[in-house]
Amino acid sequence: MIRIDLNCDMGESYGVYKLGHDEEAMPYVTSINVACGFHASDPSNMLKTIRLAKKYGVAIGAHPSFPDLVGFGRRIMAASSEEIKADVIYQIGALWALCKTEGLSLQHVKVHGGLYNAAEKNIEVATAIAEGIKAVDANLYMVCLGNSTMVTAAQNVGVKYVEEAFADRAYTKQGTLVSRKQSGAVIHDVEIVAERVLSMVKDKSVKSIEGQDIPISAQTICVHGDTPGAVEMIKSIREKLEENGIKFQAFGG
Amino acid sequence: MIRIDLNCDMGESYGVYKLGHDEEAMPYVTSINVACGFHASDPSNMLKTIRLAKKYGVAIGAHPSFPDLVGFGRRIMAASSEEIKADVIYQIGALWALCKTEGLSLQHVKVHGGLYNAAEKNIEVATAIAEGIKAVDANLYMVCLGNSTMVTAAQNVGVKYVEEAFADRAYTKQGTLVSRKQSGAVIHDVEIVAERVLSMVKDKSVKSIEGQDIPISAQTICVHGDTPGAVEMIKSIREKLEENGIKFQAFGG
Amino acid sequence: MIRIDLNCDMGESYGVYKLGHDEEAMPYVTSINVACGFHASDPSNMLKTIRLAKKYGVAIGAHPSFPDLVGFGRRIMAASSEEIKADVIYQIGALWALCKTEGLSLQHVKVHGGLYNAAEKNIEVATAIAEGIKAVDANLYMVCLGNSTMVTAAQNVGVKYVEEAFADRAYTKQGTLVSRKQSGAVIHDVEIVAERVLSMVKDKSVKSIEGQDIPISAQTICVHGDTPGAVEMIKSIREKLEENGIKFQAFGG
Amino acid sequence: MIRIDLNCDMGESYGVYKLGHDEEAMPYVTSINVACGFHASDPSNMLKTIRLAKKYGVAIGAHPSFPDLVGFGRRIMAASSEEIKADVIYQIGALWALCKTEGLSLQHVKVHGGLYNAAEKNIEVATAIAEGIKAVDANLYMVCLGNSTMVTAAQNVGVKYVEEAFADRAYTKQGTLVSRKQSGAVIHDVEIVAERVLSMVKDKSVKSIEGQDIPISAQTICVHGDTPGAVEMIKSIREKLEENGIKFQAFGG
Repeated sequence: MIRIDLNCDMGESYGVYKLGHDEEAMPYVTSINVACGFHASDPSNMLKTIRLAKKYGVAIGAHPSFPDLVGFGRRIMAASSEEIKADVIYQIGALWALCKTEGLSLQHVKVHGGLYNAAEKNIEVATAIAEGIKAVDANLYMVCLGNSTMVTAAQNVGVKYVEEAFADRAYTKQGTLVSRKQSGAVIHDVEIVAERVLSMVKDKSVKSIEGQDIPISAQTICVHGDTPGAVEMIKSIREKLEENGIKFQAFGG
Repeated sequence: MIRIDLNCDMGESYGVYKLGHDEEAMPYVTSINVACGFHASDPSNMLKTIRLAKKYGVAIGAHPSFPDLVGFGRRIMAASSEEIKADVIYQIGALWALCKTEGLSLQHVKVHGGLYNAAEKNIEVATAIAEGIKAVDANLYMVCLGNSTMVTAAQNVGVKYVEEAFADRAYTKQGTLVSRKQSGAVIHDVEIVAERVLSMVKDKSVKSIEGQDIPISAQTICVHGDTPGAVEMIKSIREKLEENGIKFQAFGG
Repeated sequence: MIRIDLNCDMGESYGVYKLGHDEEAMPYVTSINVACGFHASDPSNMLKTIRLAKKYGVAIGAHPSFPDLVGFGRRIMAASSEEIKADVIYQIGALWALCKTEGLSLQHVKVHGGLYNAAEKNIEVATAIAEGIKAVDANLYMVCLGNSTMVTAAQNVGVKYVEEAFADRAYTKQGTLVSRKQSGAVIHDVEIVAERVLSMVKDKSVKSIEGQDIPISAQTICVHGDTPGAVEMIKSIREKLEENGIKFQAFGG
Repeated sequence: MIRIDLNCDMGESYGVYKLGHDEEAMPYVTSINVACGFHASDPSNMLKTIRLAKKYGVAIGAHPSFPDLVGFGRRIMAASSEEIKADVIYQIGALWALCKTEGLSLQHVKVHGGLYNAAEKNIEVATAIAEGIKAVDANLYMVCLGNSTMVTAAQNVGVKYVEEAFADRAYTKQGTLVSRKQSGAVIHDVEIVAERVLSMVKDKSVKSIEGQDIPISAQTICVHGDTPGAVEMIKSIREKLEENGIKFQAFGG
């Protein structure tokens, strides 16, 4: 039997500000990436998110970021490896403690936004992240963009990792993500997305934007919880894959 | 043999900003309270402080605060119990993770500034802190102002605690601290301070500002690391007490 | 002919976070209080709000706050008068400059949340605010809760001011606001609110929660833009008052 | 008679944190760049700095930055032109209002750290800054690195500008600054620095790191106030130039 994980960013509300559809999406995902206060969230919202995940038995990971609340962590910053490493450790620990008060532990770490984009291409950044994760807890998984510098860093450092693919993003024939600036980078058709995810999981393959079948290796599929129609897309993916006998389970389980 | 702990706030530098005399004072204290980013410090400075404590075998505690960097956490804020609890847990976790990467664990939690001042008198605030500490780790000590609401909260919640006395502060005949706004509240004479600490530790008694001997119960003495002459005062206290056969050791040791 | 101003908090979005119904409510108000980055908003969102106000010819005021983004400025902080004064000046200036780039000037200053609540009762806080406003520009109005310490401070300092009444809040027979903790403090019935505002403006009187008619002096009525049904309530107030021949105009106009 | 301006970053303290030697250096400079809260300073420290400048008749400029307090604004961030422009306007306004309360106005704007480094090479960043400055007040000068993209942007946008040279930095034969990563980039010898500044001002020329005389065009010389020996270096420069009949005066005067 084939199994797969669906991971989704959650806990991105901040103070009085609400973001995302956590309540609606939580029942349909298996792992969540919880914002840790550097790009979004705060201790009270983190705790609320943890309790919601607990209710549905969803695995929890930290979602550390550059310290850029006003930019939602989307802007790459020229931080040093030492700063990135310490920042990642700090954020993991903060979430860990909040989880511990609910009797839960962490499954993984997936970095956010600009830090993710930097780590995709920059081995020093990816290495700093991998080292930070391993230093806190060698049982934590690092969620890496499949086929990227992040995987290389995880292997070099010797941290456990999984590769992720994006449900609604187009891929180039080289297996990299099509830039969001390019037309067709994001796929909005729910049915097509579900079919693509099925192909990724069942056949370990997906059609590139140029039209070729390319290999995809992914233990987890990233879905979004904050876009219009997000919950419908997640449900549709689950339905399609379950019809095809695929089981949904957190990768660390 | 009598033993005592000396605790000192450290790790209060922030980014490029330096504060305190951590390097000079560390060899003479037995426990430190490390700022966790809400009133001072940042992940990189926290890590640096942890490494310095490790070098000297000093026990580490978290020093959580209200979120008020510009006010150095000194301003009481009307935060709710739920906010305080979550904020305390977050900060403990952040420091815990950084300690873990150095193979160290936490001994205690002592809240900072305005949060300490609020907890002294307000049982709801003190209870939120005690609950937060216990929820993260029942082995952590809560450092309480001796004879205050903090002790009551610690007992009610069932968290381990120690009582602290202040080396350089005057006490009223009721055993409370003389307000800093009152003349004579802070004692600057190094020799007098050392004698008072000796009396606190050896005789469990100190002279009040009104001139009476009052009972003091303290397992740890708070000293300052950031005032002029701070290091000399700490050295002088150690010397005086060691001459009198008192041993310095972290309270959790 | 009687004229009145409707003031509304706006520009409370922050980074990617959206708050309020600025686009929908702007056409129906005559003055807005723009968040200045301390409890909400950021330079880009402030500019967007200014442009929207410009489109509808709405007068602009600064809405300074305690520095408490995560608490949305609602938590009273024990800041000093000097800190409050400097913080208020800073925030006014920031908004002023953004307005100036659109060819607009500021009409008024109304403090936000916890700072407003502090200023209602604490003459030192209210005086610091009044002094800050006057120091920047003696033509700026200070928006004061009617019949409060804020009015006394404005008079003492010699700053221009207007008094405001709240459209949807109950009043005691002493003319003070009924605490939000008390049942009946907020009136949700759109029709009743509109009738009350008409009475406040036309008869300078309103029914207290105890049932007596009490005098109300207000040159501006505060309405909300971020609660459910907010826009409907604003429209309803306008319609009711316009039917009764009352003209809507910014108080500084 | 030749005249020159000496500009220096000041007001970089933050809350309880002290940075720089403002009191000692202020009497010897003619223009200061005041941090505006995004990388350093806060409203109270800004006001204190303004009062010190007033005492010595020193011209004041804004020193806006990327929003990166923990990184002291040194880390380049991938902010958009719109964000940079709005951030610059906000910071200018905040300082302007604080100056106005002391009866002073602003002379110039010089961006800080990472934003300066970005603007040196990136015409979009430099243009956003120039547009922001001009939009607030067409009388403000933009301080540009001599011979850089910043000058081009200032000319294109039509904002007033001055070019600056660095007292203690080595130049390449192309007239650009030698990277700090390269040996010899910063000149520490006080006498050599004074001679170089004299040459820059009197002969509009300086010796490059390769040994050639290169042309320098500068209406202001940047000196540092926060490095060891900073004040001695400033005094030494003044003495050397005054001996050579050069007059010190703010460029806008």
